Amino acid sequence: MTQDQSPRGARRASTRLVTTKAELKENRAAMTGTVAAVLTMGALHAGHLALVERARELADHVILTDFVNPLQFGPGEDYEAYPRPLDADLALVDGLVDVVFAPSVEEMYPVLPPTVSVTAGRAGTILEGAARPGHFDGVVTVVAKLLQLTAPDLTVFGRKDAQQLAIIQRLVADLDLPVRIEPVDIQREPSGLARSSRNVYLDDAAREQALVLSRTISAALRAAPSVGAIRDVLAAALERAEIDWDYALALDPASLEEIGPEHRGEVLVVLAGTVGGTRLLDAAVAVATAP
Amino acid sequence: MTQDQSPRGARRASTRLVTTKAELKENRAAMTGTVAAVLTMGALHAGHLALVERARELADHVILTDFVNPLQFGPGEDYEAYPRPLDADLALVDGLVDVVFAPSVEEMYPVLPPTVSVTAGRAGTILEGAARPGHFDGVVTVVAKLLQLTAPDLTVFGRKDAQQLAIIQRLVADLDLPVRIEPVDIQREPSGLARSSRNVYLDDAAREQALVLSRTISAALRAAPSVGAIRDVLAAALERAEIDWDYALALDPASLEEIGPEHRGEVLVVLAGTVGGTRLLDAAVAVATAP
Repeated sequence: MTQDQSPRGARRASTRLVTTKAELKENRAAMTGTVAAVLTMGALHAGHLALVERARELADHVILTDFVNPLQFGPGEDYEAYPRPLDADLALVDGLVDVVFAPSVEEMYPVLPPTVSVTAGRAGTILEGAARPGHFDGVVTVVAKLLQLTAPDLTVFGRKDAQQLAIIQRLVADLDLPVRIEPVDIQREPSGLARSSRNVYLDDAAREQALVLSRTISAALRAAPSVGAIRDVLAAALERAEIDWDYALALDPASLEEIGPEHRGEVLVVLAGTVGGTRLLDAAVAVATAP
Repeated sequence: MTQDQSPRGARRASTRLVTTKAELKENRAAMTGTVAAVLTMGALHAGHLALVERARELADHVILTDFVNPLQFGPGEDYEAYPRPLDADLALVDGLVDVVFAPSVEEMYPVLPPTVSVTAGRAGTILEGAARPGHFDGVVTVVAKLLQLTAPDLTVFGRKDAQQLAIIQRLVADLDLPVRIEPVDIQREPSGLARSSRNVYLDDAAREQALVLSRTISAALRAAPSVGAIRDVLAAALERAEIDWDYALALDPASLEEIGPEHRGEVLVVLAGTVGGTRLLDAAVAVATAP
């Protein structure tokens, strides 16, 4: 459905840039019907557009937030160097969203760090959080703020950042935020490789080697519904060590704790490894019904 | 204005008890006009009724929450023994509020402790928080949840628990919660003693001795707008040691840090001390404009 054919698209023909909370609230209050929020740190690419597309399918209005959140960067990380191509971002989503909210740091955090904040607890200290203390606390704090400010009916998050998605689902459940989370499936290249802005760093050999990740995901899904068989697939992949694995785990999607052989219900399979110097993730949800 | 004469009172003639989040949301959605929330742990007394009265003045509808929050009790504290006289609470506010929300612990916290929670940071570790680690984290977590569930235009908090009020003001500002905090002035006995459910423990001698608190507050207010004079009043009170002081401090109301002589603007004066075995609080806000 293109913008010209769609009444929704037509309503969004003039995307508005707002930079203050007050303007955002004014624009939000004027929206009738359902509203979806797409929360980003800008530097938009095709992955973000898939989120925007899903948001457009699900709601009458779309608010995209474009904010590089200092709270989620550690001391040694690239907060200062993180790209902020606002004009290019606006061009990419022009006509596709109603509002782009791109506040300054001072607008978002008049006091930095804030006195009161949100913490992801232990779930934020494992997996991707293990080497990034405070990262997920920063994520849940800014997501909580942005969800209050945009007051959406629903918000979309990609399944590739599986830990982030799980933690944000806990945020919404644990703080009773009145919003629905819509997970968006991983976008894959024809080879099966999960799409990522980091894939540009892969040469042909690394790109071939990286397929270990998506093949391991496929094998784990074929092994379902047997928890034992899923765990065997992951153990065998780690054993073969075709790439430099960080982890290949079968988790309880709610607690992010490793599951035992007695687990039934959804199983979150998460993979992380380094290929040719580039760190890659992949993930999938399987359902376990048999031993 | 009594209930019979007031259209607001009339609308509240049948106070409804709800115990699930789903019922609460249904009742909330049916309210037109403005809504005030009064958050309590039950065991209601005259102090709570002053909050209800203020809420009734300010909004078309009032939701009172009645929930003993396990997260804000420490291991050695009286969570199990805390009174839960729900029938008496309902009788006290019958006809005064639209809805009483009294959920079970399982309804409020399907997972306890929650994975994701709110933290008051350093502001929760000083003053009343110094001897109660985690107390204010539990308070801000349940207040955040209850404000999401009740979705009020405003909520009322008493000024006597000055640190709690300041922390909740930070919660609302730092997480961009779309709600107005209305502080309610300290209720005082004719002697000046701040009303408290603990005052029943004071015998005549202790009641006389306890007036040191309100007299120190009055002296601090008379010393304004000079920051130096306010600090002198507090230092002199501590020096005289007529009661067993915990603290008598002049604070920045936003940060809860002690102010220096160069401070201008609002000054939060907070007092805590023990009289005849009973711990008492008092507080006031002064404005500093002169050295």
